[in-house]
Amino acid sequence: MAGVSRREIPQLPEDSSAPIRDGVPEHGRVPKYYAVKARVAALLEELGEGGALPAERELAERFGAARETVRQALRELLLEGRVRRRGRSTVVAGPKLTQPLSLDSYTEGIRRRGLRPGRTLISLDRHPAPAKLAGELGVASGDPVWHLERVLLADDERVGLESTFTPVALLPDLADEFDPATSFYRYLREHKDLVCAGGEERLETVLATPREALLIGTPPALPMLLIHRLTRDPAGRPLERVRTLYRGDRFSFTATLKAVTDR
Amino acid sequence: MAGVSRREIPQLPEDSSAPIRDGVPEHGRVPKYYAVKARVAALLEELGEGGALPAERELAERFGAARETVRQALRELLLEGRVRRRGRSTVVAGPKLTQPLSLDSYTEGIRRRGLRPGRTLISLDRHPAPAKLAGELGVASGDPVWHLERVLLADDERVGLESTFTPVALLPDLADEFDPATSFYRYLREHKDLVCAGGEERLETVLATPREALLIGTPPALPMLLIHRLTRDPAGRPLERVRTLYRGDRFSFTATLKAVTDR
Repeated sequence: MAGVSRREIPQLPEDSSAPIRDGVPEHGRVPKYYAVKARVAALLEELGEGGALPAERELAERFGAARETVRQALRELLLEGRVRRRGRSTVVAGPKLTQPLSLDSYTEGIRRRGLRPGRTLISLDRHPAPAKLAGELGVASGDPVWHLERVLLADDERVGLESTFTPVALLPDLADEFDPATSFYRYLREHKDLVCAGGEERLETVLATPREALLIGTPPALPMLLIHRLTRDPAGRPLERVRTLYRGDRFSFTATLKAVTDR
Repeated sequence: MAGVSRREIPQLPEDSSAPIRDGVPEHGRVPKYYAVKARVAALLEELGEGGALPAERELAERFGAARETVRQALRELLLEGRVRRRGRSTVVAGPKLTQPLSLDSYTEGIRRRGLRPGRTLISLDRHPAPAKLAGELGVASGDPVWHLERVLLADDERVGLESTFTPVALLPDLADEFDPATSFYRYLREHKDLVCAGGEERLETVLATPREALLIGTPPALPMLLIHRLTRDPAGRPLERVRTLYRGDRFSFTATLKAVTDR
């Protein structure tokens, strides 16, 4: 077989979701911080969820590394959600929350994980729609739209930030009728008889801006998962344009794939 | 309405996918690097895709900032895929590639974007299946599985890294029959009469390991989109377990949402 090496290579990782060869290159040098990170990662396994890591200074002594090197290793583990800060100590984090990519509301998704969903209102304001947003929502440029901005909570922990844009013509009494601590979809359903019947999502990774980091309480420049969503009613009319930022260290998203034949 | 401020606030961003208030906090200080980043971002708009940025030193002078501050701003723009390195200069990047979350192969997704898909073989090896992988693939622990590892290319640029695991019992002649520069799904379909009929995906953001960064040619610790996939044939039999890493600065993923009623 041309071009394929059949040399002996190390066995596969126990966890099929883990990187191959523990992320260590076949050739080339392993950065010092990464060697420390691998040793700290092994320590996390031993400690188990919620276990407290030794102090930075102690880790530096144990691994014969500079404190700056240990700090870089811990910073990556923090950005990846494998450790968390608890007060002044660093503890082993639990697994990421998995949310389905679906028309379910955030509320339903979080409940299904056995957590208590919540939302904190940042603002609810009327704006003239910029051209692109107007096009997405099927209104004229400059027509009034609501911008509802809320911090997403799971068991009182801030985990995301959501901006919902919706035409004022569709929901003229939103500011008076809607309780921003509750599900917007439930409001649509129960107060307005509006049902989300379909939509499109686009998902990407971005770095938190200073404002977002402040509102969500994350380290600045934490990699986030950003979901852009457009939701429609059964007649295809746009109901909302949503921009939701989820902590990249706390969330993963699942999708069920169907046969290709229908596309 | 209680708790909702109706103060005058700046107008919405022109682009509904952009962060609110350009990411600048209402209260609290804007980090210096972020102020520089915002000014560089405005410059990117002026220059347009492919335009070359002035040198770091020149930007530092223009914005009255330390070179280290400019460097941090450029580093974030690079991680986010808004600028790219071209030789020794930094140029304005084009939009991210969007791929559907679907049972289509990578090949089909990239072609639909008008780009030329390609793959470079890293290795094709037989391994005894660790317990978790064996369970996912419906084989006994220790049964032989193939591990096919390939770098994903788009117009000859390295954009991802894919590990495919599949039972040797299902594809005993893979190493002899399969051309690793081509689509694995086409091989399944045309040589084996095996069709991917369904599957599950899980998507998260992770940092590139040193090995991954080396193979894909990205900066170390670049935020990546990691997709875990399990694919099944029409009878529900697992065909493959795949772990695909996509450059977070180059890709976004789309999903079509259907009504909740069927779940």
